[in-house]
Amino acid sequence: MQPNLNIVPFVSVDNMMKLVLSIGVEAFLTGLAAYVEDDFRRWESFDKTPRVASHSAEGVIELMPTSDGVAYGFKYVNGHPRNTRDGRQTVTAFGVLADVSNGYPLLLTEMTILTALRTAATSAVAGRHLAAKGARCMAIIGNGAQAEFQALAFKALMGIDRLRLYDIDRTASEKCVRNLKGLGFDIHVAASAEDAVEGADIVTTVTADKQYATILTDNMVGAGVHINAVGGDCPGKTELHADILRRAQIFVEYPPQTRIEGEIQQLPADYPVRELWRVIAGLDAGRADPAEITLFDSVGFATEDFSALRFVRDRLHGTQFYEDLDLLADPDEPRDLFGMLLRAAA
Amino acid sequence: MQPNLNIVPFVSVDNMMKLVLSIGVEAFLTGLAAYVEDDFRRWESFDKTPRVASHSAEGVIELMPTSDGVAYGFKYVNGHPRNTRDGRQTVTAFGVLADVSNGYPLLLTEMTILTALRTAATSAVAGRHLAAKGARCMAIIGNGAQAEFQALAFKALMGIDRLRLYDIDRTASEKCVRNLKGLGFDIHVAASAEDAVEGADIVTTVTADKQYATILTDNMVGAGVHINAVGGDCPGKTELHADILRRAQIFVEYPPQTRIEGEIQQLPADYPVRELWRVIAGLDAGRADPAEITLFDSVGFATEDFSALRFVRDRLHGTQFYEDLDLLADPDEPRDLFGMLLRAAA
Repeated sequence: MQPNLNIVPFVSVDNMMKLVLSIGVEAFLTGLAAYVEDDFRRWESFDKTPRVASHSAEGVIELMPTSDGVAYGFKYVNGHPRNTRDGRQTVTAFGVLADVSNGYPLLLTEMTILTALRTAATSAVAGRHLAAKGARCMAIIGNGAQAEFQALAFKALMGIDRLRLYDIDRTASEKCVRNLKGLGFDIHVAASAEDAVEGADIVTTVTADKQYATILTDNMVGAGVHINAVGGDCPGKTELHADILRRAQIFVEYPPQTRIEGEIQQLPADYPVRELWRVIAGLDAGRADPAEITLFDSVGFATEDFSALRFVRDRLHGTQFYEDLDLLADPDEPRDLFGMLLRAAA
Repeated sequence: MQPNLNIVPFVSVDNMMKLVLSIGVEAFLTGLAAYVEDDFRRWESFDKTPRVASHSAEGVIELMPTSDGVAYGFKYVNGHPRNTRDGRQTVTAFGVLADVSNGYPLLLTEMTILTALRTAATSAVAGRHLAAKGARCMAIIGNGAQAEFQALAFKALMGIDRLRLYDIDRTASEKCVRNLKGLGFDIHVAASAEDAVEGADIVTTVTADKQYATILTDNMVGAGVHINAVGGDCPGKTELHADILRRAQIFVEYPPQTRIEGEIQQLPADYPVRELWRVIAGLDAGRADPAEITLFDSVGFATEDFSALRFVRDRLHGTQFYEDLDLLADPDEPRDLFGMLLRAAA
């Protein structure tokens, strides 16, 4: 008999913050990005399926499973744009990594913070492969919960150190300025989206409205820009005018999911797109010339969460940033579940 | 701002046992069965989808989500028949109930024990609607972790008080006899499956082999018997000879799932079956006459887990059988996730 088969390590929100801070936010993003990139490179070894979504008038609850045949991971994540009215997060998440050979969970962790980190790390991985060389200035349109993570990921991976922030609510931009103070950015708070994109090498759109919005129109996007479209991530929720899509080279995570959830839901179902993993693996070209407009139409995919779960599990060893959770029934004799219950009475 | 938005109640294995014992196993099964039956009756109000399964050579990991538009529930469950060799459970599970209006989890709970209880409660609900009147004797073929729960559920709901137990491993039957001692059963340990079914009004098959097995052959099943087939629950795993299926009136939970996973995977895809919920709701007939053979081809469905999650949540109020889990990030200002991280450093 093995000891403690009932126990699953659990990373609470508090412990996730401690883990991230003990490593350092930028170092964490860099390490996580390496896992994301590794898993994209071995894309074909994953069981892939579009997320399993339960939609309601208020939002969506999704399960995002994947497996590489050795480990299995899934994330529970909600998206409820009106949540902030009640002091709740638009997006919260938790996830589990499990051992395929016996089905036992290996890790249960908060993933609200971890999703923010993996989304930013994935954006920066894409940016490194797709943006023009020498990019230093990024516009961020939508300055909510994801904004600072995007800024730091692009700084850590690409050296972005100039930010142009815009949000319809100026207090959101001011929050970003406060939070990013002393972290090495030259920041301009823009008066409009047009102002924000002025001179930016990379434009990140990360707004939260669940509706067809037009954060960027065609005339706002100049030659050579890389667009990192993060906010459009479910049916009916887009951020870019369709004309931009037609001018850009489009890169996506998993086409069957992105065609439903991404910006390209506005385009015909057979519109040509390239898969990010193929660029990373060297099978497809990324940016062809400096004047091209590239677009990473990001919706978030299960392999990225899998990478994040693997990364956390590997970094957790030797730390105290987890608790033991009594999650699995572990009778002395496996067939004697009822006997365990009886003996608990005694 | 509301207090403790970060906290999700968590029911550990230890607390689940305490909760079950504080209510009493039979009372718990009866209460749970009422929830299962209620949810079957309002079947059409549920979002239904076949489970999302990840198969490997060793077993399967599944996610089983459903929602009634108010609450959302899912279960993580594995099935690894060879696990018992390493002292692990064949099936372990945990689950989450969440609020559809904001996507926040309301409950995280162990579901290994709870699944054993809900499976047995569902079998007994079906038995009450389908077995011949006056049934008192049940054969149980396969005396593993589920056997005692089946026995007690049929006792609590139908008054079954005579058991005929058979397992290829006699020590499994002996374990059942020990565990059920003093609980009001007259028990015969059978020398063979043929011996076990002799005189039984109800035959429950609940073996664990992941292969096409033939636990029951056609000549073993007499007129009037109700078969409760629990063990055949994934592709390639069946327990009954196809000839029995052709003689029986077949009742299932959710046909699209049962045709893949249940005993009826052996039959043509359009073979007529009836849905248990329609019998419970009075829309379809159950047993037509005492000589008929009825078969509940049970594979387990997400609504049953949903019922179990609801039941536990309702019974948890006013008890101390849960812990507070710091699962959800809850920044003072919802858009300020990064600021929360920064302040944790201070």
